[in-house]
Amino acid sequence: MPRGAIAIVGGTGHQGRGIAQRLAAAGRSVVVASRDPRRAADLIAAWPQGAGALSSASYAEAIAGADITVLAVPFDTVDRLLQEHRAAFKANTLVIDITVPLMFTGGTATLATVPEGSAAEYIRARLRPDVRLAATFKTVPAHLLAEIEQPLDCDEFVCGDSAEARSEAVTLLSAMRGVRAIDVGPLVRARSIEHLTLLAVAVNGRHKIRSARFRVVGL
Amino acid sequence: MPRGAIAIVGGTGHQGRGIAQRLAAAGRSVVVASRDPRRAADLIAAWPQGAGALSSASYAEAIAGADITVLAVPFDTVDRLLQEHRAAFKANTLVIDITVPLMFTGGTATLATVPEGSAAEYIRARLRPDVRLAATFKTVPAHLLAEIEQPLDCDEFVCGDSAEARSEAVTLLSAMRGVRAIDVGPLVRARSIEHLTLLAVAVNGRHKIRSARFRVVGL
Repeated sequence: MPRGAIAIVGGTGHQGRGIAQRLAAAGRSVVVASRDPRRAADLIAAWPQGAGALSSASYAEAIAGADITVLAVPFDTVDRLLQEHRAAFKANTLVIDITVPLMFTGGTATLATVPEGSAAEYIRARLRPDVRLAATFKTVPAHLLAEIEQPLDCDEFVCGDSAEARSEAVTLLSAMRGVRAIDVGPLVRARSIEHLTLLAVAVNGRHKIRSARFRVVGL
Repeated sequence: MPRGAIAIVGGTGHQGRGIAQRLAAAGRSVVVASRDPRRAADLIAAWPQGAGALSSASYAEAIAGADITVLAVPFDTVDRLLQEHRAAFKANTLVIDITVPLMFTGGTATLATVPEGSAAEYIRARLRPDVRLAATFKTVPAHLLAEIEQPLDCDEFVCGDSAEARSEAVTLLSAMRGVRAIDVGPLVRARSIEHLTLLAVAVNGRHKIRSARFRVVGL
């Protein structure tokens, strides 16, 4: 796997495929990781050629080889995934959490209560100490991510367990068209970012739109 | 007190004075309510004349006469305030909660845990059932509110305990220059709005700015 390779775990899912294509378009080496690598290979074959390299792999292979791993899987599968692959991450790898523990109870969206405080902190508690973590991309709508000809036209907030982790995540996001990445500090900020997603879901539902997202004014 | 009068409880405070002046500029009848009404009267005398009427009153007098009451006091004083004046609100009055239970622990901003879920729901639990509640204006920076020549240039989210309460709050906000009011549904959305404020505080602190606020893209 090339140096600087980015594994997208859940790369055939709604969010994963958009992130994979946008990073490849920005010239990065992207590995679309799937429990069914053949399905990932078929998917990639149908995508337009980007500037970067796209390949497919199993979760285990992709995680073991990547310098950056994006967790683009549903929140409720993360625990099992990290239990299974905890030892496989390279030392000092950067993991990027994009999950939001959204639940729908009686048609109303809420965030699941997470003992650690947020999905990001839940994931932090399940990674080895020598694996770094940043959380971002929690708010941009999946369908918009996948419309790769469209600039995203939004800000995305980045928090993380070190300034270096945040800085790498900011660099990664900034390679995508139309995204401004805004560092908001330590992982404890993740819950606020997850609430932003909940607010976007509420705006979408109430105003019959699909792509509510945010820009910061004054920065 | 004229029909449709708006009481700003805590109207001499940072947020209250900006809201009072902006509503008066929009032609509304505004009562600046203070524990020290003489101080409120002196303050009003120094403000530029707006299109609407500005007057001063005690909390008790203002609450008893108002059709809309904005609670522009610190969150930690709300419980006592509502205990003291619970019986004074007119039936069917609309109360507008703008509080955010921000705390700073070791230099880091967090939201206080509120058993009811949010500041707005905490206030709901302390109002009479025949008093209506909407929550909004939780995110716009106080110093910007007070610079009344500046359009606010942001979106503000409105939640409330009925469609009517939200609609009235939206109308009120929309009278101010540069604000788009966005209805996000029931009071349970208040915590997300409060987290948005926390995120703005984090952006301000980290990027050495003072006026981070938000616009929704895609609406």
